[in-house]
Amino acid sequence: MNAADLKNIKITGGYWKARTDINRTVTLTTEYEQLKITGRYDTFKQIWKEGMPEKPHYFWDSDVAKWIEACAYNLIHHTDTKTEELVDLIIDDIEKAQWEDGYLNSYFTVVEKDKRWTNLLIKHELYCAGHLIEAAVAYNEAIGKKKFLQIMCGYANHIDSVFGPEKGKLHGYPGHEEIELALVKLYKATNEKRYLKLAEFFVTERGKQPSYFDWEEKQNTGLLRYNRKKGTTKPYSYVQAQAPVAEQTAIEGHSVRALYYLAGVADIAEHTGNMDLLEACERLYENMVNKRMYITGGVGSTPDIERFSFDYDLPNETAYAETCAAIASVFFCNRMLNITKDGKYADTMELALHNGVMAGISLDGTEFFYANPLATDTRAVDEETLEFKAHMGYKRRKWFGCACCPPNIARLLSSLGLYFYSYDCNGIYINLYGSSEFSHEGMLLTQITNYPWDENIKIRVGCDGGCSKKIALRIPGWCRKLSIRIISRNVSAEFKKGYAYLERIWHDGDEIDLFLKMPVEKMQAHPHVRHNTGKTALKRGPVVYCIEEEDNGKNLSSLVLRSNDEFQSIYDDNFLGGCVYLTGPAYRLSEKEFSGMLYRPYSPDYEKVEIKAIPYAMWTNRTPGDMLIWLNII
Amino acid sequence: MNAADLKNIKITGGYWKARTDINRTVTLTTEYEQLKITGRYDTFKQIWKEGMPEKPHYFWDSDVAKWIEACAYNLIHHTDTKTEELVDLIIDDIEKAQWEDGYLNSYFTVVEKDKRWTNLLIKHELYCAGHLIEAAVAYNEAIGKKKFLQIMCGYANHIDSVFGPEKGKLHGYPGHEEIELALVKLYKATNEKRYLKLAEFFVTERGKQPSYFDWEEKQNTGLLRYNRKKGTTKPYSYVQAQAPVAEQTAIEGHSVRALYYLAGVADIAEHTGNMDLLEACERLYENMVNKRMYITGGVGSTPDIERFSFDYDLPNETAYAETCAAIASVFFCNRMLNITKDGKYADTMELALHNGVMAGISLDGTEFFYANPLATDTRAVDEETLEFKAHMGYKRRKWFGCACCPPNIARLLSSLGLYFYSYDCNGIYINLYGSSEFSHEGMLLTQITNYPWDENIKIRVGCDGGCSKKIALRIPGWCRKLSIRIISRNVSAEFKKGYAYLERIWHDGDEIDLFLKMPVEKMQAHPHVRHNTGKTALKRGPVVYCIEEEDNGKNLSSLVLRSNDEFQSIYDDNFLGGCVYLTGPAYRLSEKEFSGMLYRPYSPDYEKVEIKAIPYAMWTNRTPGDMLIWLNII
Repeated sequence: MNAADLKNIKITGGYWKARTDINRTVTLTTEYEQLKITGRYDTFKQIWKEGMPEKPHYFWDSDVAKWIEACAYNLIHHTDTKTEELVDLIIDDIEKAQWEDGYLNSYFTVVEKDKRWTNLLIKHELYCAGHLIEAAVAYNEAIGKKKFLQIMCGYANHIDSVFGPEKGKLHGYPGHEEIELALVKLYKATNEKRYLKLAEFFVTERGKQPSYFDWEEKQNTGLLRYNRKKGTTKPYSYVQAQAPVAEQTAIEGHSVRALYYLAGVADIAEHTGNMDLLEACERLYENMVNKRMYITGGVGSTPDIERFSFDYDLPNETAYAETCAAIASVFFCNRMLNITKDGKYADTMELALHNGVMAGISLDGTEFFYANPLATDTRAVDEETLEFKAHMGYKRRKWFGCACCPPNIARLLSSLGLYFYSYDCNGIYINLYGSSEFSHEGMLLTQITNYPWDENIKIRVGCDGGCSKKIALRIPGWCRKLSIRIISRNVSAEFKKGYAYLERIWHDGDEIDLFLKMPVEKMQAHPHVRHNTGKTALKRGPVVYCIEEEDNGKNLSSLVLRSNDEFQSIYDDNFLGGCVYLTGPAYRLSEKEFSGMLYRPYSPDYEKVEIKAIPYAMWTNRTPGDMLIWLNII
Repeated sequence: MNAADLKNIKITGGYWKARTDINRTVTLTTEYEQLKITGRYDTFKQIWKEGMPEKPHYFWDSDVAKWIEACAYNLIHHTDTKTEELVDLIIDDIEKAQWEDGYLNSYFTVVEKDKRWTNLLIKHELYCAGHLIEAAVAYNEAIGKKKFLQIMCGYANHIDSVFGPEKGKLHGYPGHEEIELALVKLYKATNEKRYLKLAEFFVTERGKQPSYFDWEEKQNTGLLRYNRKKGTTKPYSYVQAQAPVAEQTAIEGHSVRALYYLAGVADIAEHTGNMDLLEACERLYENMVNKRMYITGGVGSTPDIERFSFDYDLPNETAYAETCAAIASVFFCNRMLNITKDGKYADTMELALHNGVMAGISLDGTEFFYANPLATDTRAVDEETLEFKAHMGYKRRKWFGCACCPPNIARLLSSLGLYFYSYDCNGIYINLYGSSEFSHEGMLLTQITNYPWDENIKIRVGCDGGCSKKIALRIPGWCRKLSIRIISRNVSAEFKKGYAYLERIWHDGDEIDLFLKMPVEKMQAHPHVRHNTGKTALKRGPVVYCIEEEDNGKNLSSLVLRSNDEFQSIYDDNFLGGCVYLTGPAYRLSEKEFSGMLYRPYSPDYEKVEIKAIPYAMWTNRTPGDMLIWLNII
C-alpha cells in the first residue's frame, strides 16, 4: 500500500491535535531561536573563520535541515509567511554556499576545507546531505517552491559523480546512514532513476569485504576512528558494516544509524523488488521487537556509543532509548507496514509514538529528552559524572550540543498525519487512530475519537454516491476484545494480519463504530530480561504507565503490586494536558522492622497504599523527581 | 583492648589454615614474579631513563612495600631464607635510593625529578611512604633486622621536616591516605612521639578551609586534578577533604582512601584521647554499615572513581566493591573493635573477611579480583567498553596495571592471626573463630573448629595452675541461637556488646564448647535499596551465598525462591577446597508462554527446580560464568 499525501490529511482534534498544534505554534519557534543563538541558522553564510566563536560542527547542516522540513509540512495546511520567509532566507544562504560542482556542506567549506569525503566513517557529510534532500523535497511538495529542490538535485548529482560502483569513483558509504532513504524520496520527487540507483549502491555496498572504512583509514592516517577504540567485538557493527545487511541476523550498533539504514533498505527493497533485502528487514525487525526493545518502543539500551545491546539486555535506569531512535523506528516500521500490509509494524510504530517518542518532548513543547530512561532515581543522575549527565537525566532540556532530537521530533509531529492513513488500489487503510480526516479519490473518512484515552473510534464515511473501496481498520495487537458496529447492513468483514477489511458499497453518512477494549493490563517481560523478573508494568491500550515521586513519594521500588488487584482508569481533562491516569492498590515495604539496619532475615511487612500512575510520555512535566515503570509484583 | 602480637598466634587448621598456607606458599611467589616482570621489584635500582620501557608509576613503591610486609609476617613462624634474601636485596636497593636528606620515592627520583611534594592530591608520595613504613615496622618486628626501619625513620624525619603546622612547612596532607596509620605504627615501634604528632597533623589538617589542595593547584598550574573534573558535587569529597572529619556525617569519596583514613583517625583517637575523632569514626562507621555496605561487606559501590555512592545505592552487577576497600574495612573495624570492645565491629570485619575480601583471590592463590560484583551476566561484561573492563569482570586476573589488591590481600592473609585475638588487663578476647592457638601471659588458648562451616568451636585452656583471666567469646551479631558449655562449674558469664565474658579460675585442660547455630537464612535488604526489593540473599553464619551458571544454568534471574521453602546445608570436603554448599527448591520462570515475544500480560508460570548455592567467596573458581547473590522471592 502507499503512504497517503499529507495534503489530504488533517488532524482535527483530540490528543494528537493538541500535541501537533503545540509543535507548530511553540516548538518550531523555540527551535528556531536555538538554531539562531547557537550559530546553526547562519551556518550556510560561511562566515566562520578559525578563532571565531560558534565553530560549525559536522552535523549542524542536518539540524537546520530537519527544522526546515518540519516547517515545510506545517505550511501545507497553515499559511505562515513569517516562517516561510525564514526558510527562504536560509535557502538563499544555502544556494550561495553551494560550490560550482554542486558540493554543499557548511562544515567542510569553512572548517576542514580540503577534507571532503575523507572521513565517511565519522564526519556525517552524506548524513547532512540526506537531511537537506529530505527538507528540499518536503518544501517543494508543501508549497511548490522549487529552488531548494534544484539545489539539492545539483548536490545529489555531484554525490553521484563521486560515489558508485564504477571505476574511479569512491566505493564508500556513510558512517551515519540517512542519505539512502533521502535519495529514494528525491527519486520519487523527480523521477530521476540515478538517485534510486545511488541509494541502492549505498544500501548494498555496506558491509562488503574488504571494508571501505579500512581502505579509507589507510588513505588518511590520523583520522579519528572512535568505533574501533570503543571496543565493539565485531568490527564496524557500530555502523552496521560488519557484513552486508542480507547476511545480518541481529540489529546491531548505533540505534539511530541502524534504523535509518533499515528504512533505506526497506525503500530499496520496495523499489527494486530485492527480496533478500526485504527479508533482512523482517529478520532484523523481529530481532528488535522480540529481543531488544523496551516496552515503551524505545531502542538502543546502552549509553555506551548509543547502541543496541545484546538480546534481552534492557536495563531501566541506564536505558538510553534515544528519542531519535524511537522516531527512526517509526520511519522504518511505517515503510514496512506499507510494503507488507502487516499490522504488527503499525503496532510497533504506535507503541513508539505514544511512549518512546512523546516522552522526548515536554507538554509545553519547549524541552526535550535525548535519552529516555525507564526508571530514575534523581540522586543517581545527580551523582553521575558530567560526561554521562549530558544526555541522561530526569529534566528535559531546551537544546543539546548534539541537537538531533529536538528538530527530529518536530518534523515527525509536523508530518504525523502521514502515519495515520495508507491506501492501495483496493481501498483505504486506517493505521493509527485519532480525530482526523482523510480524503482519497472521492471519499472522505472522518475519525472522531479521544483515542488513546477513549476506547471508541467513530469513523464517518463521506462520498458522492456509492463507493466500493474497502476500508481496512487496524486491529492493534494489544487489543484482546473489540467490536465493530456499522450503522447499515451488507458489510463483509475479513480479518487479516492485524486489519479488519470492511467491504460494501459505502454511502455518504455511513458510520463505523469501533470499540477497542482497553482494560488496564499488568505486563510481564520475558524471563530472560534479567532487569524485569519479578516485576510488572501497567499498560492500557498502546499507552505505558509509570509512577512518579510527585504522586507516590520517594522509594518507588519499595512499592509492590499484587497480581489480582485491579486498577481503575480515570480520564481527567485538566491533568497533564488531558489524559487517563490509573489508580489502584499497592503495598509499600515497611522499613520499620529494619530499625535503621541495612539487612535482616527476610520477613517483608507491607503497608497498603493507593498509587497513581500516569502515562510514561507525560513524566517529569510537573516537579522533576523519581520515576518507575517496572514495579515489583507478588 | 590491645591487638595481640602475631608471634603469639598460630593458625593451626581448618579453612583459614588452608587459605593462609596457599597465600604463603603460592601467592607470595606468583606476586614476586609479577613484581619482577613488571619492573616493580627493581624500581629502587633507579636505572629507568626516558625512552626505556617499564616506566615507574607513582604507586609502584607501595606494591613492593605491601609484598615485603606480607613476607615479613610469614617469616615469624616460617623460616624462609630465599624470601628473606629477596627482601634483603630490595632493602639494599631502597637504602641506595634514599636521598641525603632522607627522601625516598622511586618515581620522583627518576621520572618527575623536580616535582617532589608538588601534587599531593594525585601523586601518592605520602601513600608510598606509609606502605614502606608499614613494611619496615613489620620486617623489624618479624625477624629483628633493623636496617629497613632505620631507613624509614630517616624518611619519616624528612617528611616531618617538610610537613606540619609550623611556619615554613607545607600544611598539606596526602591525596591518598595511608601514612597516618603507618606513622602511628612507626611511633609504636620506636616510641618517637614526633611520628604520632605528624600523624595527628595529617589527620586533623584534612578538610580545613581554605583547602590546601586549592593552594597547591595555584602554586603548580597545569597539574592533573581529576577529582574536580569528575564532577563530585562536594569539592574534594573524593579524598575526604570536604570538611574536617569531626564535621563529616557520611562516609564519602574513594572507598580505600576513606577507610585507610578512618583507620588512621581511630589510631589518633586512641593515642590522643580525642573523643571528637572517635565519635566521627563511630558516626561514619554507622553510615557505612547501615546505608552503604553490600551484604558481602564490600564497600564503594560506584566504578566511577571507585567511590562510595549515596545512601542505599548498592547496584549488584556494577558493584565496584574493591578488594582493597574490604581489606581497609577490616583494618578500620579491627582498630575500632580494640578501642571500643564492641563486637559489632568484629561482625563487620568478619563479614568482609569471609565474603568481600576472600572473593578477591582464587582458591589456588594465583589470581585476583579488583572489583567484586554481586551479580554477573557474562555478556554484559564482554560487551562493555575496554576501559570499563579493566577492573570489572567475571574472571580473576594474575595482575593489574594498578596492582594494589594482590599484595594487599597477601599482607592481610599473612597477618590474619592478628584479627583473631585481643587482650586487656582483665583477659583475653576471641574475636574471630578458626582453629588456632594464642598464648598470652601464661595462658594458651586453643581453638579447634571447622568454622565457618561447622557450628561448633571447642576452646581448650592451657595454663599452669589457676588463672583468673576472663575469656571473652565474641557472639556474632548474625547468631540468633547459641549455647556455651563448659566442662566445669563455677563459671559466671556476662553478655555485653557482642561478647560473652566467662569468668572463673581456669585450670589446664578446661574446655569451652561453643555452638553458634547456623541455619540457612534468607536475607532481606532495606526497602530503600532499590536494586534488591523483591529479592533475597542466602546466608549461613557469616557466609553469603551465590548461585553460579555452572550449577544452575543461564538466566539466573529467572529463578525465584519461595519464602517458606527450606534450604539444606551440606559440607563437602572435596568441593571448592572444602566448604558448605546449599541446596533447595526454586521456581524457574517459564518462557514457553511468551512464544518468542518480549512482553505479554502478567501471568507467570514456573517450573520447580533444585538449585545449588556456593559461598560467594568461592565463585568463578570453576568455569567462569553468570553469578547471582540476590534472587527473586515470592
